[in-house]
Amino acid sequence: MTKTTYVYDFAKGNRDMKDLLGGKGANLAEMTNLGLPVPPGFTITTEACRQYLAEGTEPDGLAEEVDAHLAALERTMGRALGDAGDPLLVSVRSGAAFSMPGMMETVLNVGLTDSSVAGLAASTGNERFAWDSYRRLIQMFGKTVCGVPGEAFDRALDDAEREHGAAQETALDAAALRALVTTFKKIFKDHTGQDFPQDPREQLRLAIHAVFDSWNAERAILYRRQERIPADLGTAVNVVAMVFGNLGDDSGTGVAFTRDPGTGQRGIYGDYLQNAQGEDVVAGIRNTVPLQDLERIDRGSYDELMRAMSTLEDHYKDLCDIEFTVERGKLWMLQTRVGKRTAAAAFVIATQLVDEGVIDLDEALCRVTGKQLAQLMFPNFGAGGSDRPVARGVAASPGAAVGKVVFSAERAVELAGEGEDVILVRRETNPDDLPGMIAARGVLTSRGGKTSHAAVVARGMGKTCVCGADALEVDVRRGQFTVDGRVVREGDVVSIDGATGDIYLGAVPVEPSPVVQYFEGEIGPDSGVLVRAVHRILSHADSLRALGVRTNADTGPDAARARRFGAQGVGLCRTEHMFLGERRALVERLILAQDEAGRKAALEELLPLQRDDFVEILREMDGLPVTVRLIDPPLHEFLPDLEKLAVSVAVAEATGKEPGRDGELLAAVHRMHEQNPMLGLRGVRLGLVVPGLFDMQVRAVAEAARLLKRDGGDPRPEIMVPLVGTVQELEIVRAAAEKTIAEVDPGVDVSIGTMIELPRAAMTAGQIATAAEFFSFGTNDLTQLTWGFSRDDVEGSFFPRYLEHGIFGVSPFESIDPDGVGRLVRIAAEEGRKARPDLHLGVCGEHGGDPESVHFFASVPLDYVSCSPFRVPVARLEAGRAAVGTTTPSASGSDSR
Amino acid sequence: MTKTTYVYDFAKGNRDMKDLLGGKGANLAEMTNLGLPVPPGFTITTEACRQYLAEGTEPDGLAEEVDAHLAALERTMGRALGDAGDPLLVSVRSGAAFSMPGMMETVLNVGLTDSSVAGLAASTGNERFAWDSYRRLIQMFGKTVCGVPGEAFDRALDDAEREHGAAQETALDAAALRALVTTFKKIFKDHTGQDFPQDPREQLRLAIHAVFDSWNAERAILYRRQERIPADLGTAVNVVAMVFGNLGDDSGTGVAFTRDPGTGQRGIYGDYLQNAQGEDVVAGIRNTVPLQDLERIDRGSYDELMRAMSTLEDHYKDLCDIEFTVERGKLWMLQTRVGKRTAAAAFVIATQLVDEGVIDLDEALCRVTGKQLAQLMFPNFGAGGSDRPVARGVAASPGAAVGKVVFSAERAVELAGEGEDVILVRRETNPDDLPGMIAARGVLTSRGGKTSHAAVVARGMGKTCVCGADALEVDVRRGQFTVDGRVVREGDVVSIDGATGDIYLGAVPVEPSPVVQYFEGEIGPDSGVLVRAVHRILSHADSLRALGVRTNADTGPDAARARRFGAQGVGLCRTEHMFLGERRALVERLILAQDEAGRKAALEELLPLQRDDFVEILREMDGLPVTVRLIDPPLHEFLPDLEKLAVSVAVAEATGKEPGRDGELLAAVHRMHEQNPMLGLRGVRLGLVVPGLFDMQVRAVAEAARLLKRDGGDPRPEIMVPLVGTVQELEIVRAAAEKTIAEVDPGVDVSIGTMIELPRAAMTAGQIATAAEFFSFGTNDLTQLTWGFSRDDVEGSFFPRYLEHGIFGVSPFESIDPDGVGRLVRIAAEEGRKARPDLHLGVCGEHGGDPESVHFFASVPLDYVSCSPFRVPVARLEAGRAAVGTTTPSASGSDSR
Repeated sequence: MTKTTYVYDFAKGNRDMKDLLGGKGANLAEMTNLGLPVPPGFTITTEACRQYLAEGTEPDGLAEEVDAHLAALERTMGRALGDAGDPLLVSVRSGAAFSMPGMMETVLNVGLTDSSVAGLAASTGNERFAWDSYRRLIQMFGKTVCGVPGEAFDRALDDAEREHGAAQETALDAAALRALVTTFKKIFKDHTGQDFPQDPREQLRLAIHAVFDSWNAERAILYRRQERIPADLGTAVNVVAMVFGNLGDDSGTGVAFTRDPGTGQRGIYGDYLQNAQGEDVVAGIRNTVPLQDLERIDRGSYDELMRAMSTLEDHYKDLCDIEFTVERGKLWMLQTRVGKRTAAAAFVIATQLVDEGVIDLDEALCRVTGKQLAQLMFPNFGAGGSDRPVARGVAASPGAAVGKVVFSAERAVELAGEGEDVILVRRETNPDDLPGMIAARGVLTSRGGKTSHAAVVARGMGKTCVCGADALEVDVRRGQFTVDGRVVREGDVVSIDGATGDIYLGAVPVEPSPVVQYFEGEIGPDSGVLVRAVHRILSHADSLRALGVRTNADTGPDAARARRFGAQGVGLCRTEHMFLGERRALVERLILAQDEAGRKAALEELLPLQRDDFVEILREMDGLPVTVRLIDPPLHEFLPDLEKLAVSVAVAEATGKEPGRDGELLAAVHRMHEQNPMLGLRGVRLGLVVPGLFDMQVRAVAEAARLLKRDGGDPRPEIMVPLVGTVQELEIVRAAAEKTIAEVDPGVDVSIGTMIELPRAAMTAGQIATAAEFFSFGTNDLTQLTWGFSRDDVEGSFFPRYLEHGIFGVSPFESIDPDGVGRLVRIAAEEGRKARPDLHLGVCGEHGGDPESVHFFASVPLDYVSCSPFRVPVARLEAGRAAVGTTTPSASGSDSR
Repeated sequence: MTKTTYVYDFAKGNRDMKDLLGGKGANLAEMTNLGLPVPPGFTITTEACRQYLAEGTEPDGLAEEVDAHLAALERTMGRALGDAGDPLLVSVRSGAAFSMPGMMETVLNVGLTDSSVAGLAASTGNERFAWDSYRRLIQMFGKTVCGVPGEAFDRALDDAEREHGAAQETALDAAALRALVTTFKKIFKDHTGQDFPQDPREQLRLAIHAVFDSWNAERAILYRRQERIPADLGTAVNVVAMVFGNLGDDSGTGVAFTRDPGTGQRGIYGDYLQNAQGEDVVAGIRNTVPLQDLERIDRGSYDELMRAMSTLEDHYKDLCDIEFTVERGKLWMLQTRVGKRTAAAAFVIATQLVDEGVIDLDEALCRVTGKQLAQLMFPNFGAGGSDRPVARGVAASPGAAVGKVVFSAERAVELAGEGEDVILVRRETNPDDLPGMIAARGVLTSRGGKTSHAAVVARGMGKTCVCGADALEVDVRRGQFTVDGRVVREGDVVSIDGATGDIYLGAVPVEPSPVVQYFEGEIGPDSGVLVRAVHRILSHADSLRALGVRTNADTGPDAARARRFGAQGVGLCRTEHMFLGERRALVERLILAQDEAGRKAALEELLPLQRDDFVEILREMDGLPVTVRLIDPPLHEFLPDLEKLAVSVAVAEATGKEPGRDGELLAAVHRMHEQNPMLGLRGVRLGLVVPGLFDMQVRAVAEAARLLKRDGGDPRPEIMVPLVGTVQELEIVRAAAEKTIAEVDPGVDVSIGTMIELPRAAMTAGQIATAAEFFSFGTNDLTQLTWGFSRDDVEGSFFPRYLEHGIFGVSPFESIDPDGVGRLVRIAAEEGRKARPDLHLGVCGEHGGDPESVHFFASVPLDYVSCSPFRVPVARLEAGRAAVGTTTPSASGSDSR
């Protein structure tokens, strides 16, 4: 048996070893091997962490390996860890295979002790620096390694500042810091019962354990659940020689990007802060200078950094971001990775790299995502967005919304009813706020994160939402919020940016998306660098993809827009949407008809209306398939609300009035009332129970096709029977439909298929396929039934809790659940095709426009997805990405802007 | 290639050839080969029928084969078909592999023509008989073969009777019948445009075609759909030499049973009608005499019949029923089959045959069914049932019900509320009648068959129902029905027998079932022949079965009764049932609690109540497992009805009153209102959202177990988590439950498992099994979600239509749907066991007590089924039957009594 190696010198690793060395360790190794100036160090593997966590103690041999590598490090540096004369200090940093920003621990300055602090002062010639470094170690070590409450240290620091009349800690001098060290050591002892460890190797050992343990910190567990990161990976630990950017004006620290992560433009981007450490940059205590200024400050380091950046981009073939430190004129590279970027930058950079000959178009396609494309399709605040936001919250659901502030759902509904745009502002939302959320242009809350009720529900609705803006003090009772000293009252206008979380007072002009303007044909594909990039990548996606993209459209204009957006037909035309508005009265008549004659009369009036609808849609989609779904929802959806009607009748009776027609209606609504309409008389059941209903619809489709054909058109209608659970239902409806079509015009060609939206339909797909020319997976209902919850009823009530618990990574209504719903889809596709090899397979649930789901459907494979018009380009892009083998829809650095 | 044989002489077939020769043909062949006096004939195979139906013409060679067999038949009989001097006549009868009584066609007297009628008159010496036979042929042939409307003949017959002053057709003399033949031939020609065929072979050919065609008659198609008989089997055709029981007093016809099909008693049972044909017996024109009288009338035929019966019973080893005819002193056996019998007779005969050494106990077990046992467990009218019923309807849902007649659902609810037993009488029922059906003891309708709304819903409720009693003239508006000249008004008492369809005026005393008295231990296993038989067969079933039988019980008395009935534990204890009655107020407080403290207080009051419930049940099931399901339904089920509350608040406001607490309640109910509560916040979701709820229940279980253990008991509680869709839910609840149990008493052993009732749970059973010690399939919810309909909402609304259409053979809530729901069960069982080999598997849906479903579950195999206490013996019996390899729950002749 070969001995497991638990520790790797940076020179021994590379960027492909992320699973073992973590992302940070692998990239440090890669930079080391590229010859870049990385402070020496080594990485303890995730395997060591896993063993430690499983057994509760260090694995055998780890201590010896750490000792050996430390000895090598000391030789390289020519200094010994915690040496009293000229101490080597190290940082101990976590680094897992997946980025978990801020979730795990870091300990800096390990090696400082009562004796080595003097050596540090001597070797750096900076006593204040040495004592400041020591008090930082005690503080960080105390909190992280020994669980001392942070406030104890914070209070002592505040006391010291007050005592010395210092505005902030930088004003404390060496003597004050030395005294603070004494206080901190006392705090440490008070809380741990032990002295602060004076053995540098003991410090190192304990710091490593603390990083291991932080893998299982509560916040890390939650984060992993939410991000679907497996719980058993463990973290690597990087032990790196400390370098200091705060040793004087010849030192400093900075971040750099090889291209502009905001726009993708080439050039030098970054910030630099003289005489400072990374923490100071984060704390924002002093203002940084643009990276270009480093050329003036320290030409040598600047040139070396430029060379390093060029090396990294050539090597990684992508935008890199870099953290670096200059210690007394010497550049040190502390970290690099493929850099995050905005959606626009992702497209621009990908095509730039193609033009530069660095990558090909296939690779460019892998570098962008449908999610990014979707972001680019929202209107935005454009130039107006350069106004200074008054606050920033969590970017919970994208879009740009402007409107008058309201503080209750009732007011939102009222004002929206008067035609006003409103923004609903709440501390947090609950299910009572739903009507208000529907009525509002956007939702703004002061509490809660990405999984809060407001966030989850708004995303579900496609409504702009900024939440958790804790700078806002919302006082619902007084109808106002205060922010930054200003009071905002009901009726005042605010603007919120759901993509950035920015909140503005007043109306910020909303600009249309140039990408949408291009899709609409309002501007050409050469209109600017972004549109050009989108056009190019999307065209490439179209040339590659096997998966067709259709649209869900119920009207001519929707169908036309979707066609402009690239839809290859209509995958779902919901005929019940044609029963709304003024036609409602007809449907009411149909339902309340006392006899055959009354029903027939109502159906006869509906027939020409439906036929005209179909003519319009089929004309817009001439030459492309249009799948018409026969009426699906329960009839009583077209009837008045039971509760309101009951109240009206009861009040009329109580006050001695005649309830009149309402009384009759109430009886009908009672008769048709269902406890669970989703599980009631609807879809094909309704068609089999209400004579003439399906027949009228089929006739309308056939007549529309006949009219268009007569005019030289090429209508291609398909009839889809909803909610089929057993082949017999389909056989009966099919036989009747074929008869009707033949009556209208035997020359009209209409294929007949079914939705697969009941688990039973999936389980018996082999039987059903014998009577269906196509299947369209209705993944909304299928998800609903497979999980046993309805989107309307539960998304607000328990999804937030479930997301928190990590039971869902994402709502199964948003992204297809591959293990449950997806497995049913696979079974049905396979068994359906086996029974009928030419069976055409598509999906018409909302999942058809979801990037992750598109990849799933491509893998089944289905023949097409169908989605709302605005999602068509997203689906086209992801279908292309699936074709080049990108297995997940996330691209490098794609998850923020 | 060997030529297919399409025609079999009776001597060439046997009883195992039912698929090819049909049941009737196979049994005629069997009797022929036993040497019994069967009129000579031959059978045309189902294969010939299938070919004829597929191709629309007779298969090649069939005509020649028929000719050859006819020639042989003529030789045997010494007469030629339709011979003018002494004609051979034949009957042409359908006979499929499955009994389809009355569904297909028969033509008698084929071979009679204008010339052979005289020959028949001469050879029989009975001119009236000859002409009567001829007019019957024209009538039957016209209707069946040529589609002449029956009324045309009926009218002509009526006219003739009137003209001759004859009370009925038997009073018409030869001359009158001769004239009638002329009229009938004219009718035939008027309707068909052709003369009645005078070529006997042409008659035969057309009659055979007509029988073939009758396979696809509408009523036959419907019948097959309902009975789940495959549509492509086809029928065989039996061509048999006619024998006549109506040639004088030395002739006659009768039916005989080898044992009493009512009680199973040994002896001679049957009826005989002198000088008559089978049709006359059916028509009931004259009274039959007991079979014993034949001994006196015709000793020779009687003795031969006794010998034949004995031969048949010895041969078939079961009760046989027989149709026979005596033609001028010569006995002819026309048909035999294993005879239908009552449920009681089935048990008695099966054990008698064991005692007689004819069959063994395994075979006896195959001869009885759970359905029969269930029938024996209903109370019945016993001796009182010998009163003459005033009418008989369709036996739609078993049981015996006595009560006051009401004609509307409202009155039913009202009177039942006053403690009266009521019988709801309607022409037919619709969903509006549901509350009345629930309130009534029984339901009686004058229209509709076994698949009518009343029948389907009543069976679903287990409510006694007689429907389609068309002798009743129901006048709902006047609140009365008339029957047999008598008027029955609201408040009058009637008695209905759901097992026979009998309707009695006045109260018939209801007798308890002796079988139930035996199960209850009120009488011993030796109490009469029936109880003895049940005891013996059920004991044998217990000794064989691998499938355990538990019960669904929520109270101590239910658990105790089920244990007496043989339950081996509780498979489902529904804790929410413990939240009803006076505890409702507590639950309301829990739901409406404004804060943590209020909720806690409510939970603390509930804890001891639940604990006491569990103590009681666990004590009754000491030593046996008790599966406790944590609360499942949505909380708002415990709140007042939204509509009523809204009306009350609105009326209060409209009339200037204070709505008070109702207003507050209404807001809460609104907040919790769900469109589809079945798909809402319930089960494990509720447990994860309402802090402390599950914990209280788990604590109550653990404390109950601790108490019983302390008293020396052996409590074996299991905790079952409902509505789990993903393993994470179960992991979280499980971890919390284990902690709570350990807090109460680490020595208490409680296994933790889950319901599999969401399709997703079935699809991911392999994952869920890692956190579950057992699965219990909740097939009610699983059926609901797999099919996408809720029992409450749809059973009355479209099930009747679906049963009519043959889409269901039986409601999937009654019998498990093997292809959809059953397939999910199989997948989950297999993958669950793969992940955890010692996983315990059961089912707790209502299917657990359904015979057909028990066989399915045994085949998976599951470890146990759980059902209501009264179904426990049924499940025991069927589990035993499954163990001996009886694949379907129907036994010979089991489907009527």
